[in-house]
Amino acid sequence: FKIFTLSSNPTLTHEVVQHLGCELGKSSVKRFSDGEIQVSIEESVRGCEVYVLQSTAQPGNEHVMELLIMLDALKRASAKKINVVIPYYGYARQDRKARSREPITAKLIANLLEAAGATRVVTMDLHAPQIQGFFDIPVDQLLGVPIVADYFKAKQLEDVVVVAPDNGGVIRARKMADEMNAPIAFIDKRRPRPNVSEVMNIVGEFEGKNAIIIDDLIDTAGTITSAANALIENGANAVYACCTHPVLSGPAISRIDGSPIKELVVTNTIELPEEKMIDKITTLSVAPLVAEAI
Amino acid sequence: FKIFTLSSNPTLTHEVVQHLGCELGKSSVKRFSDGEIQVSIEESVRGCEVYVLQSTAQPGNEHVMELLIMLDALKRASAKKINVVIPYYGYARQDRKARSREPITAKLIANLLEAAGATRVVTMDLHAPQIQGFFDIPVDQLLGVPIVADYFKAKQLEDVVVVAPDNGGVIRARKMADEMNAPIAFIDKRRPRPNVSEVMNIVGEFEGKNAIIIDDLIDTAGTITSAANALIENGANAVYACCTHPVLSGPAISRIDGSPIKELVVTNTIELPEEKMIDKITTLSVAPLVAEAI
Ligand SMILES: Nc1ncnc2c1ncn2[C@@H]1O[C@H](COP(=O)(O)O)[C@@H](O)[C@H]1O
Ligand SMILES: Nc1ncnc2c1ncn2[C@@H]1O[C@H](COP(=O)(O)O)[C@@H](O)[C@H]1O
Repeated sequence: FKIFTLSSNPTLTHEVVQHLGCELGKSSVKRFSDGEIQVSIEESVRGCEVYVLQSTAQPGNEHVMELLIMLDALKRASAKKINVVIPYYGYARQDRKARSREPITAKLIANLLEAAGATRVVTMDLHAPQIQGFFDIPVDQLLGVPIVADYFKAKQLEDVVVVAPDNGGVIRARKMADEMNAPIAFIDKRRPRPNVSEVMNIVGEFEGKNAIIIDDLIDTAGTITSAANALIENGANAVYACCTHPVLSGPAISRIDGSPIKELVVTNTIELPEEKMIDKITTLSVAPLVAEAI
Repeated sequence: FKIFTLSSNPTLTHEVVQHLGCELGKSSVKRFSDGEIQVSIEESVRGCEVYVLQSTAQPGNEHVMELLIMLDALKRASAKKINVVIPYYGYARQDRKARSREPITAKLIANLLEAAGATRVVTMDLHAPQIQGFFDIPVDQLLGVPIVADYFKAKQLEDVVVVAPDNGGVIRARKMADEMNAPIAFIDKRRPRPNVSEVMNIVGEFEGKNAIIIDDLIDTAGTITSAANALIENGANAVYACCTHPVLSGPAISRIDGSPIKELVVTNTIELPEEKMIDKITTLSVAPLVAEAI
């Protein structure tokens, strides 16, 4: 088989290739003068099983189009099987109609990938596991929890409590707590009446403990930093945070920097630009996990 | 029926709506903090015939994704028919495999539009008319030649010759010449041997005449300005140029400004930003034509 990289995660692809001891497929992505994408595959893939690694992270639309065009090129070059490795599946939060006349973009992307020629998908920590069912082709979902849990276990923190930052995150926190052999707590938010501000209440024991907040992704970091504040104000000893996908858009970095979070542990499903690699952030590689799934 | 606009051509959509005396469908396109597109349709479309107008011009990938997401939303909102008006069909130059392992992105886009829910396409001056056959749904192709020819006829230029800037443009130039009741000429380029620079030769009579160069699109303006130079250097009286799609990327504007082209006539299939509206450029509206096709 051959592994090709696109623009989103060249470093991760190189690491995966090293783990497998295989070679990186020769290809390039360029732009025409008007911004249109020009993909070229520089070696034969006829009859091959190929892997293409691309996260549909910021700039998400560009990365989606790049991926679709690459799939079209591979299909027309007679690749036998086209496996798409999407460490971070963008648009995953648009996975249902929350209001009338909304799109379900997570499903649209699934349809587009199949239309372009994908025959299998490998991805990590989908925002909702139901997104697997949006595809008619095989989907493997890898989980970041074991990687992150191993890191925290090695730190040998005492008196740990794993905290879900919202009601939707309890299942994920449970998995992490199992790995860490720790109790869980969660931040319960409710709106007493429409247009009345949310009431935040921490359910579970955390006073004097080392809290580890876990989420699948951190975007503007509003949820995680307000959870961290609530924990510290109410007597937690220290607050750590972790997630698989560091989206980190808008005010995220300054919020994290200014928050009581001691350390934020993320993975490289999204390749962070230099300016987002602040001291507080530790990045773990998913390369061994992805290599195993290939 | 209802007409919706997206980001590429709000002005043209408004003109079309005025021509038809109907109302613009209420919708908006916003961005989430991480750049993902959020489309909202703010009125019912259940059982309606809808039109969405969007050129896939620069930034092409963003405009394609916006359109696909809008189509998904309309489909899920139970629109009866979804007509897509794409005045400028981007990626049209990638319409064949010129080299091994190239994608055919023009076909990919056709597949994506159908997968997202389009049931009919209205477009203008496809780079190759064969692109119509990339779709399994009805495609109407409108032509810019009559609009541009009417403009030049009104100028009452004498001794006109219509010039195709390359061998591929002769059919289009023939149509324009018919409308103008004028003779044609074309720029014949050939490469005597590989890696030897092209030889340019003007076939047809043009000395002392007013030349009108016509193309479907002008991108970096290299072809059209070198044609204009050749015509003037070899004795043409004056050179005008026209095209349907003013892509005008990279050095285009400065090249046109510095060229002997007296006036460049384009249409509004692509909405030009302020800084590209130089004095030499005249823009004609395709709104009446599009309105008629709806
Ligand atoms: N890229 C995005 N950034 C922020 N919010 C989003 C994004 N995509 C979708 N959403 C919204 O997030 C909500 C779903 O998030 P969740 O409740 O965490 O599953 C929905 O209301 C979506 O409209
Ligand atoms: N956006 C673009 N800008 C410039 N050239 C392109 C673009 N898209 C495709 N092409 C190339 O243009 C050539 C086809 O143009 P044409 O010969 O005018 O049909 C092919 O070699 C394409 O690779």
